[in-house]
Amino acid sequence: MLNPATEALARLLPQGVMREIAPAYLEEPRGRFRGQAGLVAAPRDVEEVAAIVRACEKARVPIVPRGGGTGLVGGQVMPDGAVPLVLSLERMNRIRDVYPEEGVIVVEAGATLQQVREAAAKAGRQFPLALASQGTAQIGGLLATNAGGVNVLRHGNARALCLGVEAVLPQGQIMHDLKRLRKDNTGYDLRDLLIGAEGTLGIITAASLVLAPVPAETGVAMMVVESPEAALTLLSLAQARMAGGVTAFELISGQGLRFLDVAFPDLRQPFATRPDWLVLVEVGLPAGLSADEALEVLFTDATEAGLVSDGVIAQSGQQAAELWAIRETIPEANRHVGAIASHDISLPLSEIARFIRDASAMLAGMADLRINCFGHLGDGNLHFNLFPVEGKTRDAYDAIRRDLSRAVHEMVVARGGSFSAEHGVGRLKAADLARWGDPARLGAMRAIKDALDPAGIMNPGVILA
Amino acid sequence: MLNPATEALARLLPQGVMREIAPAYLEEPRGRFRGQAGLVAAPRDVEEVAAIVRACEKARVPIVPRGGGTGLVGGQVMPDGAVPLVLSLERMNRIRDVYPEEGVIVVEAGATLQQVREAAAKAGRQFPLALASQGTAQIGGLLATNAGGVNVLRHGNARALCLGVEAVLPQGQIMHDLKRLRKDNTGYDLRDLLIGAEGTLGIITAASLVLAPVPAETGVAMMVVESPEAALTLLSLAQARMAGGVTAFELISGQGLRFLDVAFPDLRQPFATRPDWLVLVEVGLPAGLSADEALEVLFTDATEAGLVSDGVIAQSGQQAAELWAIRETIPEANRHVGAIASHDISLPLSEIARFIRDASAMLAGMADLRINCFGHLGDGNLHFNLFPVEGKTRDAYDAIRRDLSRAVHEMVVARGGSFSAEHGVGRLKAADLARWGDPARLGAMRAIKDALDPAGIMNPGVILA
Repeated sequence: MLNPATEALARLLPQGVMREIAPAYLEEPRGRFRGQAGLVAAPRDVEEVAAIVRACEKARVPIVPRGGGTGLVGGQVMPDGAVPLVLSLERMNRIRDVYPEEGVIVVEAGATLQQVREAAAKAGRQFPLALASQGTAQIGGLLATNAGGVNVLRHGNARALCLGVEAVLPQGQIMHDLKRLRKDNTGYDLRDLLIGAEGTLGIITAASLVLAPVPAETGVAMMVVESPEAALTLLSLAQARMAGGVTAFELISGQGLRFLDVAFPDLRQPFATRPDWLVLVEVGLPAGLSADEALEVLFTDATEAGLVSDGVIAQSGQQAAELWAIRETIPEANRHVGAIASHDISLPLSEIARFIRDASAMLAGMADLRINCFGHLGDGNLHFNLFPVEGKTRDAYDAIRRDLSRAVHEMVVARGGSFSAEHGVGRLKAADLARWGDPARLGAMRAIKDALDPAGIMNPGVILA
Repeated sequence: MLNPATEALARLLPQGVMREIAPAYLEEPRGRFRGQAGLVAAPRDVEEVAAIVRACEKARVPIVPRGGGTGLVGGQVMPDGAVPLVLSLERMNRIRDVYPEEGVIVVEAGATLQQVREAAAKAGRQFPLALASQGTAQIGGLLATNAGGVNVLRHGNARALCLGVEAVLPQGQIMHDLKRLRKDNTGYDLRDLLIGAEGTLGIITAASLVLAPVPAETGVAMMVVESPEAALTLLSLAQARMAGGVTAFELISGQGLRFLDVAFPDLRQPFATRPDWLVLVEVGLPAGLSADEALEVLFTDATEAGLVSDGVIAQSGQQAAELWAIRETIPEANRHVGAIASHDISLPLSEIARFIRDASAMLAGMADLRINCFGHLGDGNLHFNLFPVEGKTRDAYDAIRRDLSRAVHEMVVARGGSFSAEHGVGRLKAADLARWGDPARLGAMRAIKDALDPAGIMNPGVILA
């Protein structure tokens, strides 16, 4: 049994860590969960984090670790149970060290992604985690949720970009493992266990991260494809030619473009007639090879192969940014229209085209809907989001929302896919994990949770409900 | 307390799994440990593995999982304690499925690396794990030890190449997690926990692995550098030009070349005067860019920058293989000479050059030695091996062997490095881990071990002594 966070607990905590319980600490972007907080603490260093965790463990008070709060599955709020202490990493936001010659940066958990990207750029390198919420999302949360984004195809997700962590474990132990090593086979991979554990096994307080070289040549193109099948064949063709130089490969649907027309009529779109399917291709190539020419050759070959019917290659950084803006504005246009249900799914690449067809047909038999299917096609990761038909609002679908999501997820799981590709489990999908998770895997997860957090204070209700 | 494996236990196991206790099951390549075995079992499928594990768990009999037996830290043998059952994966050696269009292959744990590489090549792809023991090393062992090799710089270690595993946990539960997904954020990362756990948390029985596209253009060069510093600057230069296209960057010392002269006088070496330091550079580049020309430009720039004084660029596949043979034959030449002590260490890149200098000076003060320092410089991973001076044998150093290794490892750890970069901990370095491991990390490792393997039957004495 857990106890609520009280003023008596606050008096046991390090001087000056307490914060006002501002509403922002209790919110999440989709507004599905409303958090409660008895206390908000913002420690300034890892020792203060450890002291807070020890005090909470002793008092059996739940802790909700909080980064930028941009997570989409409710992992950053605790709507019920014993009123928690919210532990915000906002004041631990320093860039500790940059090692350009090593390709390493060491940062505190509260640093925003944008801060880290800017520090990398200043050192002539790039930190290749890229997602729309970079101004707010913090490194600690990005690691805790193993965030994805648009460059996973080339550089991997957040896990692949982390060499070491400093963390506070659920009984207040400080784990010093901020290594700057590419190779270190000295025992169990606790770093990767904490990454993706969504704050349920401890609190990441700092991380050493990979900085990649900036490619000598970069280019962006948008190409009109007939179908998701054609898009995947185009991806294969591009990868065969580019030797790992395809840094992003994003699918955009005609529905997404039409939502942009409604929500952002001033946003310039390259094709006057909105095509059914588009891909955005980004490449990063060696010196001596023009990215424009490489994209031109790809476009020509793809056209001859019947994969592509139209296209545009950015002729400047400005144009490249405009093409990216189309992709990056889609989530905002979605919010403007108001989704009935969103699905962050992944599938084996060879199942994707069939899934899009079959799921669309299945859903058409369940309700009148519009589907905006878009996302990181190169990773097999789709955002498969359902919207009301024109003239209806999302409320009209309240009665069947769960059934729709259940049907989508069931089809995904049956085809070897995942019901949470990059957003994580949080509270939103804890029941899904209990339903579809492999029993042996769930049992081992529970055993690890109980072993590391016997009091059960770390973000209760997240992942393992 | 554990019990010895007996005939009574054998009668409880599935029909036909027992094997003769051949000497090969009790050996490891460096001859430092001699295994014991009461039983050897070679199951044919995951259900048989699970049945064996359940029977051993019930009888409290230790299990030593065994792949190809090429590991260098004694993780594949149990020299003392209750006589174990050796569980060999040799009969689970099928390539289950190849998905070229997905870039995925699903294989059983007993398949050799060579088998997997050949299956990948047949499908027009590559499996980019590459190491000298590929004909013997098996996928299960390579994953259990998170093997490295020569292409980690571009493709990561074994962990980075694994998308999913099927495994038997220490109480006989079968974990089905053979996903073919690039993104799957559904709970704790048990895959990465099993990878690198060296058989102490369960037995990997199959894996889905990443197949990479074959680069359109490849090239190999060998360049003479003045010093390790110059080699690292050359690496930076190469990476800045090649946009991730540097697939290998190996350091070779003059000592290594002279050992080759002694042990393999017929092996052709490109430089008549043996230089102090060489690097082998391999690149994989996009279509439209000649690898030869790219290496030529790199060589010219590096020469002008004073980094490189001589070089050779392979003009054919044959020549490339000859250059690689120099690198790959060094371990064999080392065995011919007979090392006093070998060290598989990694360091932050910016510490490497200074470490080589300081460690060499320190050792010169301790004993008359020859040092062969070589390895995966791009990963910060050196094999820093000590040899007798001419006219002495390794036995002459018996009294100081431990002191030498201790001094090397202490210097490595003090500079933020690892005393086991790619070989793992096994039995050989369990005491090192206990000495130098972070206490909070060790505590969490122990808690996880006890939670998943309460009877302590899985490869006892490995990692956590």
